[in-house]
Amino acid sequence: MLIRVINPNTTVAMTTLIDKSAQLAARPGVLVEAVTSEMGPASIESHYDEALSVPGILAEIAAGEEDGAAGYVIACFGDPGVDAARELAAGPVLGIAEAAMRAASCLGRAFSVVTTLDRTRGRAAELVDRYGLRPVCRSVRACDLPVLALDSDPGAPARVLAECRAARDADGADVIVLGCAGMADLCAALSADLGIPVIDGVSVATAAVAGLAGLGLRSSGRGEYAPPPRKPYTGLLHGFGS
Amino acid sequence: MLIRVINPNTTVAMTTLIDKSAQLAARPGVLVEAVTSEMGPASIESHYDEALSVPGILAEIAAGEEDGAAGYVIACFGDPGVDAARELAAGPVLGIAEAAMRAASCLGRAFSVVTTLDRTRGRAAELVDRYGLRPVCRSVRACDLPVLALDSDPGAPARVLAECRAARDADGADVIVLGCAGMADLCAALSADLGIPVIDGVSVATAAVAGLAGLGLRSSGRGEYAPPPRKPYTGLLHGFGS
Amino acid sequence: MLIRVINPNTTVAMTTLIDKSAQLAARPGVLVEAVTSEMGPASIESHYDEALSVPGILAEIAAGEEDGAAGYVIACFGDPGVDAARELAAGPVLGIAEAAMRAASCLGRAFSVVTTLDRTRGRAAELVDRYGLRPVCRSVRACDLPVLALDSDPGAPARVLAECRAARDADGADVIVLGCAGMADLCAALSADLGIPVIDGVSVATAAVAGLAGLGLRSSGRGEYAPPPRKPYTGLLHGFGS
Amino acid sequence: MLIRVINPNTTVAMTTLIDKSAQLAARPGVLVEAVTSEMGPASIESHYDEALSVPGILAEIAAGEEDGAAGYVIACFGDPGVDAARELAAGPVLGIAEAAMRAASCLGRAFSVVTTLDRTRGRAAELVDRYGLRPVCRSVRACDLPVLALDSDPGAPARVLAECRAARDADGADVIVLGCAGMADLCAALSADLGIPVIDGVSVATAAVAGLAGLGLRSSGRGEYAPPPRKPYTGLLHGFGS
Amino acid sequence: MLIRVINPNTTVAMTTLIDKSAQLAARPGVLVEAVTSEMGPASIESHYDEALSVPGILAEIAAGEEDGAAGYVIACFGDPGVDAARELAAGPVLGIAEAAMRAASCLGRAFSVVTTLDRTRGRAAELVDRYGLRPVCRSVRACDLPVLALDSDPGAPARVLAECRAARDADGADVIVLGCAGMADLCAALSADLGIPVIDGVSVATAAVAGLAGLGLRSSGRGEYAPPPRKPYTGLLHGFGS
Amino acid sequence: MLIRVINPNTTVAMTTLIDKSAQLAARPGVLVEAVTSEMGPASIESHYDEALSVPGILAEIAAGEEDGAAGYVIACFGDPGVDAARELAAGPVLGIAEAAMRAASCLGRAFSVVTTLDRTRGRAAELVDRYGLRPVCRSVRACDLPVLALDSDPGAPARVLAECRAARDADGADVIVLGCAGMADLCAALSADLGIPVIDGVSVATAAVAGLAGLGLRSSGRGEYAPPPRKPYTGLLHGFGS
Repeated sequence: MLIRVINPNTTVAMTTLIDKSAQLAARPGVLVEAVTSEMGPASIESHYDEALSVPGILAEIAAGEEDGAAGYVIACFGDPGVDAARELAAGPVLGIAEAAMRAASCLGRAFSVVTTLDRTRGRAAELVDRYGLRPVCRSVRACDLPVLALDSDPGAPARVLAECRAARDADGADVIVLGCAGMADLCAALSADLGIPVIDGVSVATAAVAGLAGLGLRSSGRGEYAPPPRKPYTGLLHGFGS
Repeated sequence: MLIRVINPNTTVAMTTLIDKSAQLAARPGVLVEAVTSEMGPASIESHYDEALSVPGILAEIAAGEEDGAAGYVIACFGDPGVDAARELAAGPVLGIAEAAMRAASCLGRAFSVVTTLDRTRGRAAELVDRYGLRPVCRSVRACDLPVLALDSDPGAPARVLAECRAARDADGADVIVLGCAGMADLCAALSADLGIPVIDGVSVATAAVAGLAGLGLRSSGRGEYAPPPRKPYTGLLHGFGS
Repeated sequence: MLIRVINPNTTVAMTTLIDKSAQLAARPGVLVEAVTSEMGPASIESHYDEALSVPGILAEIAAGEEDGAAGYVIACFGDPGVDAARELAAGPVLGIAEAAMRAASCLGRAFSVVTTLDRTRGRAAELVDRYGLRPVCRSVRACDLPVLALDSDPGAPARVLAECRAARDADGADVIVLGCAGMADLCAALSADLGIPVIDGVSVATAAVAGLAGLGLRSSGRGEYAPPPRKPYTGLLHGFGS
Repeated sequence: MLIRVINPNTTVAMTTLIDKSAQLAARPGVLVEAVTSEMGPASIESHYDEALSVPGILAEIAAGEEDGAAGYVIACFGDPGVDAARELAAGPVLGIAEAAMRAASCLGRAFSVVTTLDRTRGRAAELVDRYGLRPVCRSVRACDLPVLALDSDPGAPARVLAECRAARDADGADVIVLGCAGMADLCAALSADLGIPVIDGVSVATAAVAGLAGLGLRSSGRGEYAPPPRKPYTGLLHGFGS
Repeated sequence: MLIRVINPNTTVAMTTLIDKSAQLAARPGVLVEAVTSEMGPASIESHYDEALSVPGILAEIAAGEEDGAAGYVIACFGDPGVDAARELAAGPVLGIAEAAMRAASCLGRAFSVVTTLDRTRGRAAELVDRYGLRPVCRSVRACDLPVLALDSDPGAPARVLAECRAARDADGADVIVLGCAGMADLCAALSADLGIPVIDGVSVATAAVAGLAGLGLRSSGRGEYAPPPRKPYTGLLHGFGS
Repeated sequence: MLIRVINPNTTVAMTTLIDKSAQLAARPGVLVEAVTSEMGPASIESHYDEALSVPGILAEIAAGEEDGAAGYVIACFGDPGVDAARELAAGPVLGIAEAAMRAASCLGRAFSVVTTLDRTRGRAAELVDRYGLRPVCRSVRACDLPVLALDSDPGAPARVLAECRAARDADGADVIVLGCAGMADLCAALSADLGIPVIDGVSVATAAVAGLAGLGLRSSGRGEYAPPPRKPYTGLLHGFGS
C-alpha cells in the first residue's frame, strides 16, 4: 500500500524534511513516498501562493492514481486543493492542518497553532472554523519567520519555542499544533521542552490516511466528490482537461 | 473608473451573458468591462474546475492592475480565488456569491440559492457558512443542469423556475439567489413570475464594487491582504512568479 | 431616484454631518437627502433611546413613501427599526452598522468597531452576531465619549484615533468600522493616519442602497416583510394606526 | 412583592387572558398584576406593531418603578423592549419567549414553537438564535391565525392543536412552546391531549421573575443596563425625556 | 411540595452549606431538603470525580421518586447526570450551572464564571457552549483553590473576590456566576462589595425548580427523557438494574 | 503495542462482535484486545445506562494502565466517560462516535448517522455538535431497534439498510456512520449495497488510536487531562478512591 505525501511547493529540501516526518508512519506493508510539486511557488506564504500551488498538487494526484497510490497527504498547513484532490483520488486525502488539529482535539482540551508568517494566521483560523474546532482552539500564533527561514535561520527554533511557550502559559493551550510542514523536525525537541504534546501534521496525517486506507475506506464517489465531469481546458492549463 | 468583471471560465458566450448583466450597473463615470479567462476549464462544475480557474483569474487581475482597474468582480458562484485576488488588487474585489447572498439578506428575511448541478450545492452551502448567513438561508437547491446547458437547453428556464417556486413555497424563501452567472438573463422573468426579488450576483456585485470604489475604499494593504511576497515560481506556472 | 437618509435623533447639527457623508454617494440621477427625526431623543446612547427613536424613523419612512423615495438609510449604528422599516418601504432599507460591517468584511480579513460610550458596545457586538460576522470581527472598542461630544469636545478626534490604533496594533484589525454616525467626518483623516481602510457607515450604506435600488431591487413584499396588517392604534401613538 | 405583567397591546380582553395565566404564579407574598399598555397597536403582528408597542411598555415600566414593582414580565412573544426595560427597571425583567424557551430546554430535549401568523415565524426564529437555543429547537410553526382570532374564532383551538401535533410527530418535538400570549388558556388542554409538556410563557415568566426577585436579584446596574443617560426628548415623545 | 437538592459529593459539611442556600427558595408550601450522596468522591475536581458522582446522584433521584419529590436540583457546577436524572424523575431537574448561567443572562449583558481549580474551567466552558450562552459569557476564571479549601482556607474569600473583580474590571462582566456550590455563602458579601449581581446556582436552581413544579410542569416523558428501558445490571452496580 | 477496546456493556456476545471489527486494525506490532466491562448495564439505550457504564469503563482503563496498554477505544456510540478516561490513561483514548464522525468528514461532504433506538438520536446529535460537525451532518436516523436485537432479530439488517438508503437518497448523505458498535458486522454489506462509504466506529477508532500511539503521542498531562487528584471515595464506589 503506497501513501503519497505531496509537498505543494517546489523546494526539494523541504520535501526531504517532509519525507523524514512522513516515514514515521511507514510500517510493513505501508510504503510512504514524498514527492515535490513540479510547478508553482518555492514556498507558500500568501493566498496567491496557495492558490497557485493547487495545479501542481492535482498533477501529483493524477500521477499517483496512475501509480495506484492508496491515499494522499497534502503537506501544506493551508490544506490547499483538498476538495479537488478528493474528486480525483479514489483513496483518502488529508491535509495536514485537518489531521493535526483533529488529533490535537483528542489529546487535550484546547490547542494552539504556532505558524510562520503573521499573514498566514487568518488562513489557519479559517481552517479552525471550517473543521468545527473553534471552541477548542485557544489561539493562532505566528513567530513571523518566512517558511524557508525555518531551515536556514539558526534562531528559528528558539522563536518557535518562545511562541509555543506563550501559547501554553498565556493562552492555556495543553497541546501545540505546528502550523507549517517545515517545522516537523522541531517536533520532538519542542515536546520534550514544553512537557505537552506537540503535533506535526505530516506524520499524523500520514498515519491517519494509512489507517483509513488500510480498512478499505475511500472517498465517497457519489455527489460532491464524484470524479469531475470531463471537459476541454484551454491555454496554459490545457493539459488538465480531457 | 473601470470595473473589470472576470468570467473565470473560457467560454466566450458566457462572458457575453455576464457582460449584459454587469452593464446594468454601469453609469456615467463607471465603465464596466467583462473579460474571459485565457486559461482553464470551459465551465466550472467541480472543485477541480474551480481550483483550476484561479490561475486565469489572477492573470486577469494582474492585467487589470496594469490597466488601472478600480475594482473587480469574479463572476462564478463559487467565489474562486477571492482572497488571492484581494492580495493582488488595490481596489475592491467581490465574488458574485458573496455579493448576491448579502444583498438577499437585506431584502428579505430568508433566501434560497438555486444552482445548476446537484454536486455544486456543497460549495454554495459552504459559502453560506463562510459569509455567516446560515440563519437566513432556507435552502440550496439544484436544477441539475450542466452550466452550459442553461444557454442551450430550451427546457432550462422552466426547470430553474420550478426550483425557485419550490424554494418559495416549500422552503419559505422570500428572496431567490441565482447560483450561477449563467442564469443572469433569467433574472427579470423569474422575479416577475415569482413575485419576490430574484438576485443575479453579477449585477449586484458590480454595483457594490462600483459603490465602494467610488468612495475611495480599497482592500486593506496591511496584514493578510498585503501584496504577496515576491518569489520564484517554476514549471508551467513560472510566469506567475517574480 | 431619491435616497432618504434618516437621522434618528433630533439633533439637526448631526443631520448636517450625516448629510455631508451621505452626499459622497450622490451621483447624476441619484439624489440624496438627509432628514431629521421629528420626535424622540436628542442622541442615542442607550437601549431606551434606541427604542424610542423608532417611531420617528417610521414616520420618516411613511413620509418618504409618499414622496416616492427609492430607498432609505437609517443613520444610527444600532440599526434601530430596520425590520419595521422594511415592512413599510417598497425600496431597500439599510442600517449603517449592517452596511459598514459588511463592507469591512470585503476589504480586509478582520475589522474592529470603534464606538462612543462603553455601554453601547454590547449592542454593536449583538449586531456583529446578527449579521454573522463574529469570525471576522476582532473587537468592539469604545472611546467613552458621549455622542454629542464628538462634535463639541476638541479632544474627541485624538481619543477616537487612539482606539483605532489599539484596534489595529493590539487586536490585529486591518479595517476599522466607525461605530457612530457622528464620527463620519473623521473618516478620511483616520484612514490617512492609520494606513488601513476606515469605514463610515453613512456613505457606504447610501452607496449600497443606491446600487440596489438602481438595479430595481426592492424589499420582498412576501412573508415577513409584507406591509403590516392595518389596525387601530390608540393613545399617544394613534396616528401610527390605520 | 409586586410583579407587573405588561400586555404590550391595547386590547383589554387579552390582558384579562394574560392575567389569568399570570395568576398561576401568584402566591402568598407575591402579588401579580396584569396591565394594559396605554398606547400603540391593538395586536402585535408585524415588526411595525412590535416596534410601536415599545413606548407603551416603557411607560408601564416607569409607572411600575413608581409603584415599587419588584419585577416585570413583557407578555408578547417577540420580547419587545426587553433591553430598554432592563435599563429602566431595578428588578428583573423577562420576556415570555425567553422564559418559555428556556423552560422548554430544561423539560425536554427539543422543543417546537407554535405561533399565530406565518409572518411572525421569523421573529420567533431570531429569538431562538438570540437565546442560544438553535440546537434544541426543532421547528417554528404557525397556524396562520391573526392574534385576536385566537379568542373569537371557534376553530382556533383545533388549528393550534393540529400544528402542535405536527411538531410532535413530524418534527420530533418533545415539548411545545406556545408562541403567543393569547394562546395561554389553551395550554392545559393541549398538554392533556398531546401527552407532552406545553408551555405558556406568561406563567413561566411570572414564576421566574418572582423566583429571581424573591432572592433579591436585580438587573445589573453597571454597564449596558445602567439607567439611560438623562436627556431632552422632542415632539410626540417629549414626555419620555427628562 | 418537596424539592430535593442533591449534594453529589459525600462531604456532609458541604451539604450543610448547600442547604443554607437552598432554603432561601423555600416558602409556604415548598419544602426544600438537601441530601448527601451515599457513594463516590469527597469532592468533585476532575472528570473522573464527576463521572463517579453520577451513580450516587441517580440513587438519590430514585429515592426521591419514592418519597414523592416534586423536583430536584443537582448541586455541582458540572451539572453531572442531568440527562439521566431527567429520565428517572417525573418532576423537573436542574443543574446549578444551567440555572445560574441562565439567570445571569437575564440580569446583565455578559457574565463571567468564577470557579475553583484551574482544571475545572474546561468543563464550565463546555457547559456555556451546551447552554448556548457563548456570546454572553465574558470569561471563566479560576481562583485555583481546591473545593474543600473554600471552607477551611481563611484566605479563600479574598481570592474569590480578586477573581470576581478581575472579571468585572478586565473582562467587562456585569454579572458574576459562582462556579462551585461551595461558594454559596460568599454570595451576598461579594455582591455588596462588587456592586453587581453575584449568582449562586443553588438558590436560583431551587427557585426555578419550585417555579416550574408549582405550575405543574414536568420533564417530557416522551422520547429521549422517557423512563429508561428496564434491564439487568451486573457486578458492583447490579442494584441499579431491574 | 497493546490497544485495549472496551465494550462498556456487560454482554459478552457484543464484545465478540466488537473484537471482530477491532481486529481489522491489528497489524504486526499492534495487538488489539477487546474486553467486557465487569459492571453495569447489559446494553446502553438511555442516558441512565450510559452514565452507569462509566464506572466499568474507568475500571478497565485502570486495569489497562497496569497492563501497559498504549491506548484505548471506548466502544459505545455515546462516547461515555471519554474525558475521565483521558485523565486516567497515559496513551490516547477515542470514543467510536468521535472517530467515526471525523473519518466521515474526510471521506465525503456530508454524512448521516444511523442508530438504533429513536431515543438515542438526541445524544448522537449532541456529539455532532460537540465535535463541531453540525455543518457536515445531514441527519441522525434511527431504525428503532433495541441494541441487542441487532444480533437476534433477523429483520434487523433490512431495517438498518432502509434507514441508510433514506439517509443517502432523501437526506443527501454521501457517507454513512453506523451509530452503534453492534452494527459493525453489517458494515461491509451495507457499503457494497449502498455504493458509498459506511463507517464502523470500532475499526476506525482502533486504527486511529494505533496511529497516534505509534507516533508516541499521548494525552496531555497538563491542565484538564492531568491525573485526577487523589482522594477518598465512600460507599459502593469506595474502591475508586485512593
